[in-house]
Amino acid sequence: MFHTSHGTVETPAFMPVATHGTVKAMTSSEIESIGFDILVVNAYHIYLRPGHSLVKKLGGLHEFMSWKHPILTDSGGFQALSLSKVRKITDDGIIFQSHIDGSKHFLTPLKSIEIQRALNADIMMCLDECPPYDSDYEYMRNSVELTTRWARLCKEAKSDCENGLFGIVQGGVFPELRRRSADDLLEINFDGYAIGGLGIGESKDKTFEMAEITATNIPYEKPRYLMGLGSPEDMVEAISIGIDLFDCVVPTRHARNGTVFTNHGKLVIKNARYVEDKSPIDEECDCYTCQTFSRAYLRHLYMTGEILAMRLLTFHNLYYYSTLMKKIRESLIRGEFHSFKTELKSRGDRLS
Amino acid sequence: MFHTSHGTVETPAFMPVATHGTVKAMTSSEIESIGFDILVVNAYHIYLRPGHSLVKKLGGLHEFMSWKHPILTDSGGFQALSLSKVRKITDDGIIFQSHIDGSKHFLTPLKSIEIQRALNADIMMCLDECPPYDSDYEYMRNSVELTTRWARLCKEAKSDCENGLFGIVQGGVFPELRRRSADDLLEINFDGYAIGGLGIGESKDKTFEMAEITATNIPYEKPRYLMGLGSPEDMVEAISIGIDLFDCVVPTRHARNGTVFTNHGKLVIKNARYVEDKSPIDEECDCYTCQTFSRAYLRHLYMTGEILAMRLLTFHNLYYYSTLMKKIRESLIRGEFHSFKTELKSRGDRLS
Repeated sequence: MFHTSHGTVETPAFMPVATHGTVKAMTSSEIESIGFDILVVNAYHIYLRPGHSLVKKLGGLHEFMSWKHPILTDSGGFQALSLSKVRKITDDGIIFQSHIDGSKHFLTPLKSIEIQRALNADIMMCLDECPPYDSDYEYMRNSVELTTRWARLCKEAKSDCENGLFGIVQGGVFPELRRRSADDLLEINFDGYAIGGLGIGESKDKTFEMAEITATNIPYEKPRYLMGLGSPEDMVEAISIGIDLFDCVVPTRHARNGTVFTNHGKLVIKNARYVEDKSPIDEECDCYTCQTFSRAYLRHLYMTGEILAMRLLTFHNLYYYSTLMKKIRESLIRGEFHSFKTELKSRGDRLS
Repeated sequence: MFHTSHGTVETPAFMPVATHGTVKAMTSSEIESIGFDILVVNAYHIYLRPGHSLVKKLGGLHEFMSWKHPILTDSGGFQALSLSKVRKITDDGIIFQSHIDGSKHFLTPLKSIEIQRALNADIMMCLDECPPYDSDYEYMRNSVELTTRWARLCKEAKSDCENGLFGIVQGGVFPELRRRSADDLLEINFDGYAIGGLGIGESKDKTFEMAEITATNIPYEKPRYLMGLGSPEDMVEAISIGIDLFDCVVPTRHARNGTVFTNHGKLVIKNARYVEDKSPIDEECDCYTCQTFSRAYLRHLYMTGEILAMRLLTFHNLYYYSTLMKKIRESLIRGEFHSFKTELKSRGDRLS
């Protein structure tokens, strides 16, 4: 659990991603009703459209989106590097071209914090460099040093504002660099620590090895956020090594592609076997979609390209994620997380 | 007001169109909450996907869609003629190729009723021919005779089932043929009468002249349904000449294209003038969209192509339509329809 000026966040928590200021296909009321108490908004996208200055003028992200609970913004760096065709990393920041209109931008640590402050995020993220997972030691060491320098500049730019600021631990798959990055950031002192640069191509074993090394170095009282990883299996694994926060487009993107999560594994709604299936996606699920519609109807909506298919499947997947996190929190309190994890894994992918 | 086995319909009524078994971007619960008590479903689309036999097996359209109020289905004829590349009208029916997979189909009066019975529509429509508005007298006279013959076959095919059946008056822009078509259908005796073949290119004056001639020939106690016309201005005009029922894709399609209805005219959300506009679409509107979000936010969602834009704008437009019909019904009861109509027209298109 941690506190922000827009309320408390129960951990471990999953944060749905609101790319352009909305979780795709969902209203803020629905996200709230499902039980989420924090969202991630991509600073990069809001910076380009409609612009952080406009959002500030309109009262900040909370008022703009009509979301009264906490918001975490990312720094914009990840998208500036992954979505832009032309980009260059200098000592001072990231030069990139907008993926929308080709306009040129320079994202510095100062600029990133300026954007996130304008949005009035409850939790801001430091600008970092996230190099390819297979970068060599030399490159990665220099990159960690750069990330530390930028983190210091972000902390300075935050100055006296009350919005929280998280540092991001990098270091690729080198244990020594991970520890060093964590130590550097701990010295600067942040409100929480993210683990970046994982889940980008390295093996799952490496992912969790690095996440554990990093998490172990972060004091217990600070939130630990594993960025971008969020399959149910990954999350329970990560929680067992001390991770508190997750964000991932998996539940929403999978839904729009017709894949839904159930208590018995994943289900691909377009499969012919569901043509005449009167049962809900998941008999054990209490969500609106499962309480109201059959697999046959959902399949039909999906096959005809109806927006409602995306809505109903997204609602279900987010409900599944919210319920999963609630169950995990309960199992942790009761000291039954280990058996919960074992059961979740044994249920496996029986459908698909 | 008229009765069906799924409840009473207050008239004049607007029926949202649920093309593939859902009003685009909306849930059945939302449509109900907005206040609609009847929907139109396109038999042509459901016949092709997922198939009427499957829907029957799954308990009929009401259960399939989870909609407990009345449903009106069209005959499928209009889409078979407008969406299909290859089509031919014979004395016995319409030969057409599916716009999806090119498969060949033969839609006869018997087949159309078989489909609509399988769907368990509360109100079924007769198969008719809807010729181009500028067809000559000779063609139109033969067409009216064909429509009458088909109407008789539909009535026979309905036999003892309790689902209602409406006849469709045709006759183009020829008063004599309109009267003759109405007389023919009245002789067969239907539960209600639709006016077809209008709003397809003829002048507005002709539309209402023909609608009035037809409506005047239909007994007061039978519902009169003007097919496919549904701008607010058209509806008030049509109500003043005795029309009870409307269906139209205008509110939903306009919404998806970013045009919304307000009490002060239409508003095009993408217009630059709304970039910083903190006010709702319509200050006078009580809908979720207007109570929750600013024009600036809705414009942003629209410009970034978010599904939520379509949802929120569709919700608002349908709410506007539902509220409009409620106001019209109240004004009719109070004997103030004339002044209501005058005021609606005077408010005009001040925004856009």
